Amino acid sequence: MKTVAADGAPKILHVQQRLLGKNAEIARRNRDTFRAQGLLTLNVLSSPGAGKTALLERMLADRFANGNVGIIVGDLATDNDARRLSRFGSRVIQVTTGNVCHLEADMIDRASQALGLEGLEVLIVENVGNLVCPAGYDLGEDLRVVLVSVTEGEDKPLKYPTAFKSADVVLITKIDLVPHLDFDVGKLEGNIRAVVPQAQVFAVSAKTGDGLAEWYALLQSRRSHVGRNG
Amino acid sequence: MKTVAADGAPKILHVQQRLLGKNAEIARRNRDTFRAQGLLTLNVLSSPGAGKTALLERMLADRFANGNVGIIVGDLATDNDARRLSRFGSRVIQVTTGNVCHLEADMIDRASQALGLEGLEVLIVENVGNLVCPAGYDLGEDLRVVLVSVTEGEDKPLKYPTAFKSADVVLITKIDLVPHLDFDVGKLEGNIRAVVPQAQVFAVSAKTGDGLAEWYALLQSRRSHVGRNG
Repeated sequence: MKTVAADGAPKILHVQQRLLGKNAEIARRNRDTFRAQGLLTLNVLSSPGAGKTALLERMLADRFANGNVGIIVGDLATDNDARRLSRFGSRVIQVTTGNVCHLEADMIDRASQALGLEGLEVLIVENVGNLVCPAGYDLGEDLRVVLVSVTEGEDKPLKYPTAFKSADVVLITKIDLVPHLDFDVGKLEGNIRAVVPQAQVFAVSAKTGDGLAEWYALLQSRRSHVGRNG
Repeated sequence: MKTVAADGAPKILHVQQRLLGKNAEIARRNRDTFRAQGLLTLNVLSSPGAGKTALLERMLADRFANGNVGIIVGDLATDNDARRLSRFGSRVIQVTTGNVCHLEADMIDRASQALGLEGLEVLIVENVGNLVCPAGYDLGEDLRVVLVSVTEGEDKPLKYPTAFKSADVVLITKIDLVPHLDFDVGKLEGNIRAVVPQAQVFAVSAKTGDGLAEWYALLQSRRSHVGRNG
C-alpha cells in the first residue's frame, strides 16, 4: 500500500479561486442584506440521503421558529424537496443546478429576491446533497449546519474534512436507527471534535424528535442575537 | 414555489470540457491496457457512507473472483479504506485527492502502475464518495457500479440522475435494514429503471450476504467475456 498524490488539478483550482473570490463578495452582500432584515440564515449541508429534508419537515411541523420561515432548496434535478417542504405553509423556492454540485452566493441572491424576504424571521438554505463541493462556497449564512447520519459510518468527518471543518453546527441524524447498527455514536462525536473542535454537536432523530429541543434552543438564542444586531 | 435555473456556471464548464477531452483519451488508453491483460475493471461510485468499502470487504472475504484482485481506493483524505481492504491479502493502493471530488483517468494510470497489474484478474476502483462529480470521468473501466443504500430514500436516482444514468450495474445496499425503515425497495427499483433502464439491478446486504450470489454470477460471466477478448 502506497499513497499517490493527485495532480492535474491546478487548472481547475485556478479558475475556482477566481470564482470563489467573486462568490465571497456576493456572499458578503447577501449577509448584509439578511442581517439588515433581522433574518437568521442557515446553510444546511450533507451527503445525499443524510436526512436534510426530513429534518426540515420535522422542524417546520414543530414550528421551531415560532415565526415565518423561508426555504431555498438546491438540487441537481426535480423539485421533490420543495414540494415536500411547501406542505407546511412556508415560502419555498427550488433552485435546480443541472450538473453543478453546489449552490453559489449569486444563486441565493436571485432565489431570495424571487422568494421575497419581507416578513421572514428565518431563512434556510438546503444545499445540494454533497459532502465536498458546497463546502467552499459561502452563501452569506449565519450558521453552517452539517448533517451526518448514523448509517454513514463513524469515520466520515476524517474522510470528508472540508465540509466538517466549515461547520458551526454538526447534527448527527437518524439516531433512532442506532439499535439496528454496529455503530458507536461516541466514536463519531470524537471524530467530529477532532476535525472541528469549535462546532456545536447534537444527536437528533427527525422521526422520534430526540435531541431536537436542544437544537431548537440554540436556534432561538441565535435568533435573538441576530435580531439585536439587525 | 418557482424554479430558478442556475447560471454563472459556463466558465467552470468550459475548463471542464477541455479536461474531460484529455481524460477520455487517457481512459481509452487505460481500457486498452487493462483489456490486453485480460483484466475485468470496476469503477464503484456512491454517496459517502453507502457501503462501498463494506461491500468490497465482503466480496474479498467471499473470494468472489477466485483469483487475484487489485484495488485502487480514492478519498479526499486518510488511508482508512485502503487499510481496511488490505487485510484480505489483495494488493491495495490509496489515492488521496485533497479537495478534488473525483478520480480521473490519469490518477488511475499512475496508481495502476504503482500497484502493478501482473497476475491480477480483477481491478476494482473505489471512487471518492460523491454522487455528482465522479460521474463525468471515465477511468477506463469495463463496468460502472453505482451503490445506493436503503437508508438514503427512494428518490435518489431522480435527484442525482447523472451518476445513475452512467451505471452498468446498480447495487441497492444495506437491505438488512429495510425492516427498520419506512422504505419501499420496489419504489427505488422503479426510480432506478426510469433513469437507467439498461442497468442490471441487485439488492444486496454485505452484512447478511443476501443477493450477493447473483452479483458474483454477473461478475463471473463478465470475467470470462473479458478473458476471451483479452
